[in-house]
Amino acid sequence: MSILVVGSVAFDDVTSPSGSVKNVLAGAATYFSLSASYFTDVRVVAVVGDDFGPDQEKVFKDHRIDTRGIERAKGKTFRWGGTYTDNLNEAKTNFTDLNVFEKFQPQIPKEYADTDFLFLANIQPTLQAHVRRSMPHVRLTGCDTMNYWIKGTPKELAETLKLVDVLLINDTEAKMLTNETNLPRAAQKVLAMGPQALVIKHGEYGATIFFREGAFGIGRHPFRAPTLPIEEVKDPTGAGDSFAGGFMGYLASQEVLNREVLKRALFYGGVMGSFAVERFGTERLQSLTREEIEARFQIFRELTHLE
Amino acid sequence: MSILVVGSVAFDDVTSPSGSVKNVLAGAATYFSLSASYFTDVRVVAVVGDDFGPDQEKVFKDHRIDTRGIERAKGKTFRWGGTYTDNLNEAKTNFTDLNVFEKFQPQIPKEYADTDFLFLANIQPTLQAHVRRSMPHVRLTGCDTMNYWIKGTPKELAETLKLVDVLLINDTEAKMLTNETNLPRAAQKVLAMGPQALVIKHGEYGATIFFREGAFGIGRHPFRAPTLPIEEVKDPTGAGDSFAGGFMGYLASQEVLNREVLKRALFYGGVMGSFAVERFGTERLQSLTREEIEARFQIFRELTHLE
Repeated sequence: MSILVVGSVAFDDVTSPSGSVKNVLAGAATYFSLSASYFTDVRVVAVVGDDFGPDQEKVFKDHRIDTRGIERAKGKTFRWGGTYTDNLNEAKTNFTDLNVFEKFQPQIPKEYADTDFLFLANIQPTLQAHVRRSMPHVRLTGCDTMNYWIKGTPKELAETLKLVDVLLINDTEAKMLTNETNLPRAAQKVLAMGPQALVIKHGEYGATIFFREGAFGIGRHPFRAPTLPIEEVKDPTGAGDSFAGGFMGYLASQEVLNREVLKRALFYGGVMGSFAVERFGTERLQSLTREEIEARFQIFRELTHLE
Repeated sequence: MSILVVGSVAFDDVTSPSGSVKNVLAGAATYFSLSASYFTDVRVVAVVGDDFGPDQEKVFKDHRIDTRGIERAKGKTFRWGGTYTDNLNEAKTNFTDLNVFEKFQPQIPKEYADTDFLFLANIQPTLQAHVRRSMPHVRLTGCDTMNYWIKGTPKELAETLKLVDVLLINDTEAKMLTNETNLPRAAQKVLAMGPQALVIKHGEYGATIFFREGAFGIGRHPFRAPTLPIEEVKDPTGAGDSFAGGFMGYLASQEVLNREVLKRALFYGGVMGSFAVERFGTERLQSLTREEIEARFQIFRELTHLE
């Protein structure tokens, strides 16, 4: 089945203890769509500027990603620069040039009307809600957000959360969204806001999925998937979007959506996030094979499963 | 088989968002021995003062813990007071009265000479090494330490690490011990210092065990066990010692020590740690049944295992 992602395409400058790169193709929609492309057909709605040329287009095309929804606007593409020091969990932002992304008004091409799955990457919540409402027939909607919107536009975000099935955020965001310090309690509060399931990403410790009572089948307990302990994280940028791409992409490849499928999706999310950080930008995601993905899935299983 | 723990017995005053208690029986050796007692025969070497009476003795006796190694000294037992605010991972210490623990010189009763397993709880590294050397025939030695010794007595600690099989520490301690910010690299450095295996405890995210090449069988990868997301953590004190008690206690109950057994031990460590924090002090560890432990082990399995 097909999945549509709405979000940013960007060029990043990144410095980390492993080195430095400039102008690498990045952005949430890019990480997500490359990651999801290993599982299903991907469509993108985003905006780019004059500096987005055939080389960038080719990256998407090489993964059979449908780019008809990528709008070409006058000006430059969104650019971000950040530095990671020893704490690879948090970047120091050196600059954020929104450029054409500042006036982004997502337009869904009519050819995308039959899309089965939707992922609302981290953009302004009112835009997310608008996209969701214009795609009333999707089977499942995933959504990301960030501290900026949680603090700045809480009412708009609350409206968006009523429209999504799975929210994917990190620990800090879950706590901030609910004013709770305890994760299971925070999870219950988030689920009361609308989503059927909540994925909380714990960085190097993996991720936990919490289910609303009765959602996706029967069961009392959350589920936790690991990440691989990696000796050299070159560039953590896009790990969360790559996670979301693996998670949502796997779901979109399945006929039935039950808890067992969502659990496996959580593993695939961790797998794709762990690949993303191995090289700068989207480099690793551009060159994967499905065999490598399955091999790492097996490693994740061995990492956590008793005989 | 039998296990000996050498460490502190204490009375704690604890305040957390869930309430406040005074003079509760605590200390690393207490948490450890109660936790391990559900798996195997436990012996304790510690020191207490005049304020350790029949009520406290009974707690150990009720769990068939051999207290012949608990020395009665003139004065008061070790006392600690701490407050947990919203961040339950770290206590603010209100007071530390070492009392009789200040001059603790562990003496191993001759009846303990045939002990099979040894756990060196968090005490001065030279004392740990002395105990280990006086028990040359143990099958396996586990060890804990803390920032205070890592910073204050690094040479002594390095000598101790050469004598132990499994070191159990948390993320912060592993990074401080090795001057590394990356956990897998930190783990490799710790394993080069002596231990065959390293357990790194991640608090609410579970724990990872790293193996030295070839130790306990064949395999390339570490193993990760979860903890249960708990809605109300009443008192995190002793979680690490309870984890160690479950981990070491399970090992001591097994005939063969291979990787699969160590993986299961990691699960039991998480199980016992998760029980410990549900009530203040050692209260929950005093009232468990093996059936409750097995039921939670199954929950931990369901929390992480795909079909």
